[in-house]
Amino acid sequence: MSEPLIIDCDPGQDDAVALLVALAARERFDLLGVCTVGGNVPLDLTTTNALKVLELAGRTDVPVFAGCQNPLMRPLVTAEYVMGNDGLAGAELPPPRTAPAATHAVQFLVETLRQAERPVTIATLGPLTNLALALAMDPSIRRGIGRTVMMGGTMHRGNIVPQAEYNIYVDPHAARIVLNAGLDPVLIGLDVTHQVVNTIARIEAIAGIGTRAATAVARMFLPHARIQEGLPPDAKPRGLMHDPCVLAWLLRPELFGGRRVHVGVETDSEVTLGATVVDWWGVTKREPNATVLKEIDVEGFFALVSESLARLP
Amino acid sequence: MSEPLIIDCDPGQDDAVALLVALAARERFDLLGVCTVGGNVPLDLTTTNALKVLELAGRTDVPVFAGCQNPLMRPLVTAEYVMGNDGLAGAELPPPRTAPAATHAVQFLVETLRQAERPVTIATLGPLTNLALALAMDPSIRRGIGRTVMMGGTMHRGNIVPQAEYNIYVDPHAARIVLNAGLDPVLIGLDVTHQVVNTIARIEAIAGIGTRAATAVARMFLPHARIQEGLPPDAKPRGLMHDPCVLAWLLRPELFGGRRVHVGVETDSEVTLGATVVDWWGVTKREPNATVLKEIDVEGFFALVSESLARLP
Amino acid sequence: MSEPLIIDCDPGQDDAVALLVALAARERFDLLGVCTVGGNVPLDLTTTNALKVLELAGRTDVPVFAGCQNPLMRPLVTAEYVMGNDGLAGAELPPPRTAPAATHAVQFLVETLRQAERPVTIATLGPLTNLALALAMDPSIRRGIGRTVMMGGTMHRGNIVPQAEYNIYVDPHAARIVLNAGLDPVLIGLDVTHQVVNTIARIEAIAGIGTRAATAVARMFLPHARIQEGLPPDAKPRGLMHDPCVLAWLLRPELFGGRRVHVGVETDSEVTLGATVVDWWGVTKREPNATVLKEIDVEGFFALVSESLARLP
Amino acid sequence: MSEPLIIDCDPGQDDAVALLVALAARERFDLLGVCTVGGNVPLDLTTTNALKVLELAGRTDVPVFAGCQNPLMRPLVTAEYVMGNDGLAGAELPPPRTAPAATHAVQFLVETLRQAERPVTIATLGPLTNLALALAMDPSIRRGIGRTVMMGGTMHRGNIVPQAEYNIYVDPHAARIVLNAGLDPVLIGLDVTHQVVNTIARIEAIAGIGTRAATAVARMFLPHARIQEGLPPDAKPRGLMHDPCVLAWLLRPELFGGRRVHVGVETDSEVTLGATVVDWWGVTKREPNATVLKEIDVEGFFALVSESLARLP
Repeated sequence: MSEPLIIDCDPGQDDAVALLVALAARERFDLLGVCTVGGNVPLDLTTTNALKVLELAGRTDVPVFAGCQNPLMRPLVTAEYVMGNDGLAGAELPPPRTAPAATHAVQFLVETLRQAERPVTIATLGPLTNLALALAMDPSIRRGIGRTVMMGGTMHRGNIVPQAEYNIYVDPHAARIVLNAGLDPVLIGLDVTHQVVNTIARIEAIAGIGTRAATAVARMFLPHARIQEGLPPDAKPRGLMHDPCVLAWLLRPELFGGRRVHVGVETDSEVTLGATVVDWWGVTKREPNATVLKEIDVEGFFALVSESLARLP
Repeated sequence: MSEPLIIDCDPGQDDAVALLVALAARERFDLLGVCTVGGNVPLDLTTTNALKVLELAGRTDVPVFAGCQNPLMRPLVTAEYVMGNDGLAGAELPPPRTAPAATHAVQFLVETLRQAERPVTIATLGPLTNLALALAMDPSIRRGIGRTVMMGGTMHRGNIVPQAEYNIYVDPHAARIVLNAGLDPVLIGLDVTHQVVNTIARIEAIAGIGTRAATAVARMFLPHARIQEGLPPDAKPRGLMHDPCVLAWLLRPELFGGRRVHVGVETDSEVTLGATVVDWWGVTKREPNATVLKEIDVEGFFALVSESLARLP
Repeated sequence: MSEPLIIDCDPGQDDAVALLVALAARERFDLLGVCTVGGNVPLDLTTTNALKVLELAGRTDVPVFAGCQNPLMRPLVTAEYVMGNDGLAGAELPPPRTAPAATHAVQFLVETLRQAERPVTIATLGPLTNLALALAMDPSIRRGIGRTVMMGGTMHRGNIVPQAEYNIYVDPHAARIVLNAGLDPVLIGLDVTHQVVNTIARIEAIAGIGTRAATAVARMFLPHARIQEGLPPDAKPRGLMHDPCVLAWLLRPELFGGRRVHVGVETDSEVTLGATVVDWWGVTKREPNATVLKEIDVEGFFALVSESLARLP
Repeated sequence: MSEPLIIDCDPGQDDAVALLVALAARERFDLLGVCTVGGNVPLDLTTTNALKVLELAGRTDVPVFAGCQNPLMRPLVTAEYVMGNDGLAGAELPPPRTAPAATHAVQFLVETLRQAERPVTIATLGPLTNLALALAMDPSIRRGIGRTVMMGGTMHRGNIVPQAEYNIYVDPHAARIVLNAGLDPVLIGLDVTHQVVNTIARIEAIAGIGTRAATAVARMFLPHARIQEGLPPDAKPRGLMHDPCVLAWLLRPELFGGRRVHVGVETDSEVTLGATVVDWWGVTKREPNATVLKEIDVEGFFALVSESLARLP
């Protein structure tokens, strides 16, 4: 029996790849809906982009629910400098022929999870605003949630700011609400995703697959791979496939290694805002509230992405 | 034409009086709904109490929408030590014969305000969780809101903690969201409500009105008035009618005096959590975001309450 | 036997009056030294001004110890807009003929208090940087300290910022160190000093005393009194005699009323920085750490100031 | 001409090794004094231990100045669980025959640096309380300081708490004062020192040197090395020689690699207290204020330690 799945995302180039991997696993996931949030680009664009990607994959049957425009307590910080002005630079997808559902993503989450007969898996690829609001509206929806896996956080250096990873930094209050909600999520942060480096060879292999999905992905990531190969060894890596790691873990958790630990999120101080404090060595007495991943089989990951793109139109 | 009104509350003895004052002004307000939130007592009790008060006033036609159980980011702090275990100590109202609506208060706010043809007045009597979530879900609902008036805050000493008034302290994050939303609300805090002291004479006058609404109010507040009269001059005042001031301002703003100023809310530090920083003298360059009231005509206030209770069953 | 006294100050017009009141009580206090700190004006000016005031009073025998230029953790905020460019606007005192001692004020405090045979009274009139550093260098100096009284804090509105009184705001970290050091000080804040309004009549009475000390005080405060009388009732009061209240309490504590309470200081959040959280009603379980004054006999205060100025040259 | 040097430390086993390396470089450094601070163990023990180590090296001519007992704003956190009850577990050194100087370490720093004719190198091995207080008392002492190098901080996981390295965590306010003082220090944190793993082979090689200094070092670190070799690969490393890295950098900077960057210190939030936010990739516009080291030639380091211990008695 397939696994009910909701993806909450802010596409974004790497969100697009994650969506494609999910859509390729059609027999495995019952994709109930795609929720969008303001993040990499503003909400209207992340919503349009979700529709575009579903259309690219021939899956306009999956409903898209537009969610929150802005983080709970702070102004939105976008990432056009990585993703391009429309969030999917290079993909050149046509305007979508479909429209989002009338229901707000938060309302969709609350209603779906309240009524869920089987636990629904939640995969988040962007700021956690939608899920946090749903949990704040109705904490009992927790009972409708099965596995929760998120792209977010870092134990080491951040990306958007020195101390924090983008998804957590953009809405740290939402991240704290979600981490304190008792969901015991899996967190895939920069410690994992910075290993998934886009080499030209890897992206050219994707280009060679020949499906239109693979071609779109290759077009988005080849420019990043080219810049990447010119960077010095300790430079900040460029245009990474962060979000597909979430789908890779759902499909093949054996590609990953990690540890169940306590994770705190800084919401109150500007210097460290959005920092994820991971008690890797258990030096505090705080009860673990998440599983933080640290290792990934990079070749296995790229193989999964390629196989997925090969199965799509 | 009557003024569309939504009351968001956590009854609570003084919320009950505020609701009665609103219901007595039947020709003035079109009461679209009463939203409830966890506050003085937990959500199930505040919801039951709202239903009880509507029934006391013979107004079971007004729908009640249960909202958020807990503050956004913090555990709920209740106030049974003032309000009694059920929140309406002394009133001894029968269990309600009606039930709350199926819609969540936040969803009700979003839908109503999105579709409002005339601006809806919002009166909040408890923690601001529901309104903050509605604004976070859809900032455009601001366009459906007319006057906003809140019981909350203090320029001086707090009540639940030295630095803060209860409604703001319980959910300071929600208060900050609402104050930053551009609603330009009227804030009625302890600087006003601590003037509205319950003397035995005032409450006995209410008892003498003879309606069942007046009798219930007198039963709730006479014990407070008796304790109050035994307190030394500079003691913390006891069992005050904070919330009815909100309705008094809506009905008779000329009873009040105040100033348009900037108000900040502390969300980030335990020492000052929930403090409302009011720039009364304009010493900062921050743009005013609220009108803070400081003066009240106390006799006029009690007269209005009495007249209202006299008009109810 | 006279009471050993150290005054730590940042003169400043009102510090000057406080020093004069102390110097007039020659038989009462054994003034061991005057410490200066960067505050109302930078350290070089506060030091020069202390020397000028001692010379005005004919007391160049009292040594002046220059202390810290800047607050512990924050940039200095000065108050020339009140005190004038040199800090003693209007007094027009000649340049001092004496020089400060070679010893740093912090070192003077540490050495004097370590060796004190009788408890030394500490009166602080400015930011608490010097005393905080002395206590940090050697916590055992506490044993050499007798009465401690400070001008600082507010339970109500601030002056330099909405939430805080100037002396605490300028160096909140120092204030927290001092309040946590177990000295059990007396705090005289704006709740008291805002009652000591400079009327033209009061200042003209001082002008009539005829001593050069009284004349200098009148020259400094008459412009403030004139502005004050033109202000609307709820305006921020102007050019007040905050600091002399400290000496008034040392000399005539019966002029004041207050309460032993817990006082917290905000050091960690910009919104409320420098706020003094006074648990006036004992709603927390925190142990009292200070006595906060709230009432003052204003006529008695001005009488004491006038008598003092009459006894000086 | 030798380099004037002040070492500020909290011995502690690894401080002891650092002191020995400094003392072995007698022709290179003019060691003006050793300052002590409460840290790994309380101040009386760190002071006694400094005296013991000087005596072990036959250098009782070097004066020891006891400094601050406690951090500026927080209670002291000690580390007896690593260092043993007396801070030098295993060394079994006799009680010192000498005594510390009468001058407080902060006063010694202020006086020495004010009068310095040549820039004095400052090496800190513990919490930064003494140096911070000296800079707060007199910012002009900066002109007397040459190279500044500190053991402290982490870009990655902490040790005493998940987010912070011990020396910074214990007195984060002092760390912030020092980092903002314009000294442009070199920071050697856990990113470097966690590479300097004590293998049994390395410690046994030290034991074989045969001097009494080498024997004492081997006795302190052999138990750690034995535990270390039983630990799983990703465990927190045990009993490391953090502090000698500071002396290694002073003597042989070519053993290290790093980058000039901005470093912020968290002082205001409990979740991230003491975190050092290192802008390694320059993603903020903050001006660099320190050089953070990341690479070390571990064999070169142990060779330097061994050579040093061989030159001592």
